[in-house]
Amino acid sequence: MNETITSRDNEKVKHACRLRDEEARRTAEGLFFAEGPKLCLELSAACRCTACFATQRALDRTPELAKFDSVTWPVADHVADKLSSTKNSQQVFCLFKLPHPGPEALAGARRILALERVQDPGNVGTLIRSAAAFGFDAVLLDRGCASPFSPRTLRASMGAAARIPVVVTRNLPGELTALRQRGVTCLATALRGAVPLDTVGREFAGGLCVVIGSEGQGLTDAAIDACDQAVKIPMTDRAESLNAAVAGSVLLWHFRGC
Amino acid sequence: MNETITSRDNEKVKHACRLRDEEARRTAEGLFFAEGPKLCLELSAACRCTACFATQRALDRTPELAKFDSVTWPVADHVADKLSSTKNSQQVFCLFKLPHPGPEALAGARRILALERVQDPGNVGTLIRSAAAFGFDAVLLDRGCASPFSPRTLRASMGAAARIPVVVTRNLPGELTALRQRGVTCLATALRGAVPLDTVGREFAGGLCVVIGSEGQGLTDAAIDACDQAVKIPMTDRAESLNAAVAGSVLLWHFRGC
Repeated sequence: MNETITSRDNEKVKHACRLRDEEARRTAEGLFFAEGPKLCLELSAACRCTACFATQRALDRTPELAKFDSVTWPVADHVADKLSSTKNSQQVFCLFKLPHPGPEALAGARRILALERVQDPGNVGTLIRSAAAFGFDAVLLDRGCASPFSPRTLRASMGAAARIPVVVTRNLPGELTALRQRGVTCLATALRGAVPLDTVGREFAGGLCVVIGSEGQGLTDAAIDACDQAVKIPMTDRAESLNAAVAGSVLLWHFRGC
Repeated sequence: MNETITSRDNEKVKHACRLRDEEARRTAEGLFFAEGPKLCLELSAACRCTACFATQRALDRTPELAKFDSVTWPVADHVADKLSSTKNSQQVFCLFKLPHPGPEALAGARRILALERVQDPGNVGTLIRSAAAFGFDAVLLDRGCASPFSPRTLRASMGAAARIPVVVTRNLPGELTALRQRGVTCLATALRGAVPLDTVGREFAGGLCVVIGSEGQGLTDAAIDACDQAVKIPMTDRAESLNAAVAGSVLLWHFRGC
């Protein structure tokens, strides 16, 4: 355990806040910021913790945090308030090494979730969580999606982004084309030319990639054209549409590997 | 069209803000508040609009709002800011008559969604939206749930609460017992003694009620005991749990009536 930090201007604290707020800094340093004892302990199963800031009260309340002891800095309450990105501070804040899944993460995957332009961090996090729960092997995000390691996405994914490889690509249609070339069936969620989900089988010999677009705009034509087929979720006319995370999760459930 | 309101202290504006913020007032007056041109127009298909406050810019941009003309009060921008419950004001605010589904709403229902202690308005709204989309006939809420007609719930339900009857009960276990007595099968989502969802058939001769509890605490023992059977969603060990609205929506999809 290190000395207690009592200043909001402490360099370590300012550094952690920058990692919390700035995606570019996370990428440059290969680190990310997480808040909350439960989330931090979950993440530590898969990612190396490089720093833990916590109030003495939080350390007393959650003895499991002792595993971070050598990199723990106790912080005063007003320092915890600065570190917190939520209204009710959870009083535990950790920095972790960003996972760096290599190309083999996609190469070996049998079930892949791909997201295009899903900007809401809650939707991205929820879909990563559902993908992990339903036996998908990897997640592919285009650069228009919310960052998988921002605080809001991490809250929604409950740490699942550390347990399933998440690959970010500049060229989603190109990745889909490459997947199809190795025999993976790519299914776009779209309305035009789509077949109803309940008429689509669950097993694909060469593997499967489910491609989901943003709630407002849907997928780009380029992404749809790169897929084998479009699918849609049948629904009554009593709702105009579904929540994006719900629609995606229903697809993940249908094509589950568990 | 009425005279433009330029004062934030206008009595009509203050009244609308109280309906926006206070569930007790909504119940007492039988009115609710909604924000946004799209949501208000959706709601007007099912509920009677008693007042519309909008900036001239919003009225010009959305000609369909002319249907509210006789009850429309144009408002100045700073009045719209007061009426808005979000950071980015949508500049259109309506009051509507609360729908009052009678006992026949449940009596005739073949597919019912019941929620217990689901406090998050986003989850309640999303589940109402999914229930409407997947062909459920009615929603039953216990009094521990978020109000279906609060601004946040309405945003998540996208107005679906006006297109599917939503009944609030003081005694959920009692309602479930009554449903079972008329032959409805009640399925609790719980872990203890639960069968996996994918082993449960989709058709129930006497009708079906799916009962869902809060994300953190789940269902009370009283609610579980009032049901025929508990079901759970099978998942891998790579996710500890699912988002509550996602889990519920997967169940609604499985038991869909469309």
